[in-house]
Amino acid sequence: MSRRASPKLKTSSGVSEGGLSHVDAQGRVKMVDVGDKPVTAREAIARGSIRMSAEARRQIRRGKVKKGDPLQTARLAGILAAKQTSALIPLCHPLPLSSVHVDLVPTARGYVIEARVKTVAQTGVEMEALTAVAVAALTIYDMLKAVDKSMVIGDIRLVMKSGGRSGTYRAR
Amino acid sequence: MSRRASPKLKTSSGVSEGGLSHVDAQGRVKMVDVGDKPVTAREAIARGSIRMSAEARRQIRRGKVKKGDPLQTARLAGILAAKQTSALIPLCHPLPLSSVHVDLVPTARGYVIEARVKTVAQTGVEMEALTAVAVAALTIYDMLKAVDKSMVIGDIRLVMKSGGRSGTYRAR
Amino acid sequence: MSRRASPKLKTSSGVSEGGLSHVDAQGRVKMVDVGDKPVTAREAIARGSIRMSAEARRQIRRGKVKKGDPLQTARLAGILAAKQTSALIPLCHPLPLSSVHVDLVPTARGYVIEARVKTVAQTGVEMEALTAVAVAALTIYDMLKAVDKSMVIGDIRLVMKSGGRSGTYRAR
Amino acid sequence: MSRRASPKLKTSSGVSEGGLSHVDAQGRVKMVDVGDKPVTAREAIARGSIRMSAEARRQIRRGKVKKGDPLQTARLAGILAAKQTSALIPLCHPLPLSSVHVDLVPTARGYVIEARVKTVAQTGVEMEALTAVAVAALTIYDMLKAVDKSMVIGDIRLVMKSGGRSGTYRAR
Amino acid sequence: MSRRASPKLKTSSGVSEGGLSHVDAQGRVKMVDVGDKPVTAREAIARGSIRMSAEARRQIRRGKVKKGDPLQTARLAGILAAKQTSALIPLCHPLPLSSVHVDLVPTARGYVIEARVKTVAQTGVEMEALTAVAVAALTIYDMLKAVDKSMVIGDIRLVMKSGGRSGTYRAR
Amino acid sequence: MSRRASPKLKTSSGVSEGGLSHVDAQGRVKMVDVGDKPVTAREAIARGSIRMSAEARRQIRRGKVKKGDPLQTARLAGILAAKQTSALIPLCHPLPLSSVHVDLVPTARGYVIEARVKTVAQTGVEMEALTAVAVAALTIYDMLKAVDKSMVIGDIRLVMKSGGRSGTYRAR
Repeated sequence: MSRRASPKLKTSSGVSEGGLSHVDAQGRVKMVDVGDKPVTAREAIARGSIRMSAEARRQIRRGKVKKGDPLQTARLAGILAAKQTSALIPLCHPLPLSSVHVDLVPTARGYVIEARVKTVAQTGVEMEALTAVAVAALTIYDMLKAVDKSMVIGDIRLVMKSGGRSGTYRAR
Repeated sequence: MSRRASPKLKTSSGVSEGGLSHVDAQGRVKMVDVGDKPVTAREAIARGSIRMSAEARRQIRRGKVKKGDPLQTARLAGILAAKQTSALIPLCHPLPLSSVHVDLVPTARGYVIEARVKTVAQTGVEMEALTAVAVAALTIYDMLKAVDKSMVIGDIRLVMKSGGRSGTYRAR
Repeated sequence: MSRRASPKLKTSSGVSEGGLSHVDAQGRVKMVDVGDKPVTAREAIARGSIRMSAEARRQIRRGKVKKGDPLQTARLAGILAAKQTSALIPLCHPLPLSSVHVDLVPTARGYVIEARVKTVAQTGVEMEALTAVAVAALTIYDMLKAVDKSMVIGDIRLVMKSGGRSGTYRAR
Repeated sequence: MSRRASPKLKTSSGVSEGGLSHVDAQGRVKMVDVGDKPVTAREAIARGSIRMSAEARRQIRRGKVKKGDPLQTARLAGILAAKQTSALIPLCHPLPLSSVHVDLVPTARGYVIEARVKTVAQTGVEMEALTAVAVAALTIYDMLKAVDKSMVIGDIRLVMKSGGRSGTYRAR
Repeated sequence: MSRRASPKLKTSSGVSEGGLSHVDAQGRVKMVDVGDKPVTAREAIARGSIRMSAEARRQIRRGKVKKGDPLQTARLAGILAAKQTSALIPLCHPLPLSSVHVDLVPTARGYVIEARVKTVAQTGVEMEALTAVAVAALTIYDMLKAVDKSMVIGDIRLVMKSGGRSGTYRAR
Repeated sequence: MSRRASPKLKTSSGVSEGGLSHVDAQGRVKMVDVGDKPVTAREAIARGSIRMSAEARRQIRRGKVKKGDPLQTARLAGILAAKQTSALIPLCHPLPLSSVHVDLVPTARGYVIEARVKTVAQTGVEMEALTAVAVAALTIYDMLKAVDKSMVIGDIRLVMKSGGRSGTYRAR
């Protein structure tokens, strides 16, 4: 069968783009090639929030959450998730992270979650930071859902990114 | 050393609560015991959204996203993430999922993402549905971030849950 | 944003099929719902082969492979892979496997690999057996590739499956 | 090739034992079949210890460990590891755990770590409890190693197991 | 116990080969040391095929596959699997992949699957490319098995590899 | 909500330490930043032991263990676990390992397990070596537990580490 297909396939450069275009002209996923990008120190900061009832906030403050301390657990879950990002987000590159911080700040209606991730690599760590925030927030939800099922996770966004060819990005 | 500690430890029932209370009176995490709960059919629906620029929406509609079709990729990433929930959320129980659906609906400002998860088990699948939504949204972000870094993921919440002892929950 | 989208979404049954049909009329992936299928004892047997040079076969027989014993390693890799099937094959259901066997039989041109997997569950274990065969074969390739890069993995197929509603299947 | 091998392989029962015996008469790994065992409530308790310098113990007590609270982190790492046991221990069966507890008790020379795991399944959770203890201890090591590289993890053993056909086991 | 064993163990160089030789003279697995190899740009292309019935091919072309679009799903599964290679193939080195492409070309009897993987590392990515092909093929099988259980995955082989000390390899 | 929190958060440097100190003055976990450390060749050797009954040792020597050869399986499990270390130990950095060896030496009362791990990276591989030893020992336990439930895993410790800024460490 391989022989039959060979007119359409070129050994040196892989599959000829034209030959495949009728298969799926749009949407053919690929992991973008970063092999020619310089290895540089890169950093990303992401933030998000979780909004919850007064009762849920009270239980966190008093250390009364049945499953244990949600803030510590959320931090660890976020750090671990940052390291799993390339297994979760299909087209993400696996990267050797040099640092991950996840912090939570109480607000009037819940918590703000912030993740800072650093690497020295050929591509950035925005997805790692965003994934850490999302999983930390989901962990808070999991630990408090017996008290409040109506919690809402929101405002997950990139706050800053630096170190790549495109320069530093800061959210307005 | 084990002998020295043994006054504080009881073989039959594990660690005596009192004996440990000075270590960390609050926040000692645990995976809640669901062994006595009935095995029932359970379902959860979660929803969230991603807000993006007009240009990002246009590229999705026209199939011009460089990394490939974000909607298909997001669906698959969400389904795969649902199956990894207990590895991501520290105190979640591993469950044999019987069905996972992830869908995306275009809105005026981006996409609404919805995940429906079913199981026949001793505990619910809220976290699986919420995790699927979050990872699907992160995947959209990853695939469009070259076009729009200011996308915001939000409104991640439980919409419905049924099948447990506590009856059916519906978000207002 | 969730409010804007709500006309298209129905809380009780998830996303309305019609509302999404223009997004991706074809190809919307889903994990098929097996929640109503009976829990039965199920078994699947898959087989495949790896063809290699006489020199590669000789090194295996003499225990001279630099990386170690390829047959034992392949068996273990196949067993471990069977347990990871639902993380590798996107729409596969996670299942509690009750037994996995992987065996290798020398042939005139290489090895035949066979995997037998059993479960007591709502869906079958064909993919687990096929995945075990494929990963065992890849492991053989990895361990011998210093000796022979032209090895070919082939004939991976389902040999038998039993225990589901559709009865017993046997490859002709 | 499959045809050539077929005299040695029997479709219905997998590979004939005899046919393979010359390949590796001993040591052919397999995941033991538990498909005929009854589904029962099972529990296992494991324990271990980590011995450390007075300075390391002091830093834990005073909350001065640079990487963060080692006890909380160890508990979470142990719980998460229990859920990954079947991916780590090659011939372990994947099981739906219904409860995991990991606790740490200070002793004169370090900490005793205890894990209790429960399931309702066809096989026991000894390995899950032992794995939780080992990974919790390794996590303590990781967090304190800047202070004391000579810590020793020891005495990891099964303390109790109940619920299987073989009855309750208690370590003397 | 460690003291008793110490005559046979040398701290500086690990275990003395001789001392262990009676334990398992052959087959002791090891991950080959690549620490002295140069970091270079490396690429590998692998190919395989899946043969299926006319009905199965028709359902793919018409977008009628019940589980969703198999080609897109296969590409994503292949890309994700390439990133998991070192967790699946026991003696593979973990590598930071810089690019992964998986493509499928229809043939008269099914599909040819091709994966191209690139890295900048101390060892090659043959196994990543082969693993991507195998998992993409398994994913096609999974999605079509309701239509055709007799599909055969075959001809999985290395087509090209470049960038290492051994120069460029091309399959004849 | 993000706006409300912003007085406490500084975009450039992440979360202000002071602002959070009342939340959890101690124990806030973080992955230590290694981004400024030099990339050097690093090695670590760890050792541990498993003590077992005479009957268990006899079954290993005679190749009579029902689950298969425990020594080979333990080696592979240890190697695979070394590669998963950063997913198991929450604050460990993911590293590209260049070599992993796991060996077992019979002693009068069981086995000594030794793991040697190498990398070229910004941080050391102590945890990888210790994790390999622990998981290899757990694997031995798993394979022999039908014969002897009272086995004890112990003496897991770092034997040697070299290559970092702190110079070579050798256990006394």
